[in-house]
Amino acid sequence: MSSIVVVGSMAFDTIETPFGKQDKILGGSANYFSLSASQFVPVKCVSVVGQDFPKEHLDLLKSRNIDLAGVRHGDGDTFHWSGRYGYDLNEAQTLGTELNVFETFEPELPESYRDAKYVFLGNIAPPLQMKVLEQVRKPQFVALDSMNFWIEGQRDALIKAISKCNAVVINEGEVRQLTEKYNMVDAAQVIRKWGPQILVVKRGEYGAVLFDHGDPFCVPGLPLAEVKDPTGAGDTFAGGFVGFLASQANTSLSRELLRRAVVYGSVLASFTVQDFGFGELLKLSREKIEERYRRFVELTRFTRVA
Amino acid sequence: MSSIVVVGSMAFDTIETPFGKQDKILGGSANYFSLSASQFVPVKCVSVVGQDFPKEHLDLLKSRNIDLAGVRHGDGDTFHWSGRYGYDLNEAQTLGTELNVFETFEPELPESYRDAKYVFLGNIAPPLQMKVLEQVRKPQFVALDSMNFWIEGQRDALIKAISKCNAVVINEGEVRQLTEKYNMVDAAQVIRKWGPQILVVKRGEYGAVLFDHGDPFCVPGLPLAEVKDPTGAGDTFAGGFVGFLASQANTSLSRELLRRAVVYGSVLASFTVQDFGFGELLKLSREKIEERYRRFVELTRFTRVA
Repeated sequence: MSSIVVVGSMAFDTIETPFGKQDKILGGSANYFSLSASQFVPVKCVSVVGQDFPKEHLDLLKSRNIDLAGVRHGDGDTFHWSGRYGYDLNEAQTLGTELNVFETFEPELPESYRDAKYVFLGNIAPPLQMKVLEQVRKPQFVALDSMNFWIEGQRDALIKAISKCNAVVINEGEVRQLTEKYNMVDAAQVIRKWGPQILVVKRGEYGAVLFDHGDPFCVPGLPLAEVKDPTGAGDTFAGGFVGFLASQANTSLSRELLRRAVVYGSVLASFTVQDFGFGELLKLSREKIEERYRRFVELTRFTRVA
Repeated sequence: MSSIVVVGSMAFDTIETPFGKQDKILGGSANYFSLSASQFVPVKCVSVVGQDFPKEHLDLLKSRNIDLAGVRHGDGDTFHWSGRYGYDLNEAQTLGTELNVFETFEPELPESYRDAKYVFLGNIAPPLQMKVLEQVRKPQFVALDSMNFWIEGQRDALIKAISKCNAVVINEGEVRQLTEKYNMVDAAQVIRKWGPQILVVKRGEYGAVLFDHGDPFCVPGLPLAEVKDPTGAGDTFAGGFVGFLASQANTSLSRELLRRAVVYGSVLASFTVQDFGFGELLKLSREKIEERYRRFVELTRFTRVA
């Protein structure tokens, strides 16, 4: 069993959905990813928090197999994101981004992180993603997430970071923006030319698509009677995806394994959307995860001979 | 093997997509449905065409196991729809609707149609859908499609028609508009209270969801490198769905059968979007259909034990 180094944000989120409003609750890509991936393997977290970040939450993360030696305590306030969703929870409208301690963040990995075999470069500035990756000696599997903000503002740096990765895990709209291809089959080819042999397209409630060297694989989202807040679902997905792969580190990275990893990603994400913040994620167990995996099996089951 | 009675439009379509423009090509829900369903069972078509409708096309339909005894030849021009799609092919913008001979259409079923066991009420005025249904003596399975135009203008008549059906097969946006529920799980419950025990939600490139008395079933759309025109995909889907069910008429209507029918619907629709009009649909064979069914098997295959 391998461990994963993740870099991403630890944040406060102010979120408005048709189902309620939450003011400055805990969030951030590193948080969502870590809480998800640590269901499978130990996680080593790289991030920065402000003076106002609650110590109890850090203690909670530590108690869950999440190493915080790489989390710096900056002089100032924690990163704060505000956003709003309409009934179409697939798309967030960003209302405000206060970078705060992230403005001057320089990631430096503790020695104990540098032999990690699995790396997840969460959604932060591409040069910071590169800086983290350069500090890991011999990574076996590197996955990257990004967003419109970086695609627009730092496209070249982002493509450079992407070229060092095995997998890109991003939203459908961002795939289009990044590759300038509308069709996903075309987009996957563009990304494969840049370097990564794996593209995972996140489609919100419509699930995810895996493009590798063979035929694509689709897993739908689980239709849920109650969906409250999609914030963090993408990072939770990535946590399940990379976490499962890292837990199978002894086996070779087969197409079968990648497909199961995409299903685990979808399983984990399906919990996150059921409540605001980490609500459901904190109540998780491997048993609940396996139970929901079986719901995905049932959701997609049909007679496989014509 | 049972036959299906379908009522719907025979039309000229003028279509603009980012991949080309086609002027007054053959279209209409009854055409797409019939060409699709007739791959499985004989189809009996109820519709009306104008003086300008090409006889060669009617001959072609007849040669493909499609009975046109119920198609009237009206005094005037054929129904003409004009629409435009952006890159997001999931949503059409209607530019014009010339009802023409449809304005005064009164469906009257030939005696040879009235013992049909399977009925598909394509997207036309709800009172006409009812009129067709009333003329079938003992239907075993009735499915209905509709659209925003009728939901807005003839809601009560539509719900009345729906209450007589076994299955509703409509687009996601129209499910929401019809049921006034955003969440599909809630929407399915509303429709089940009206009567139909089956709801099939069509989601364009994201595939389809089947709600019946048990857990939902999702099938994704097939990622295709070339998608030219989604017009008729929904009717083609319905043709595959009802056509397959009718071809299995001797077996009881199990959940397994419904799921396979949804996959066949998706298989057939995946051909239609690859070209304008009936381009791909006319080249179909049972062999090509089964081959593509296997692609859906591969598309959704993952290790089913955790």
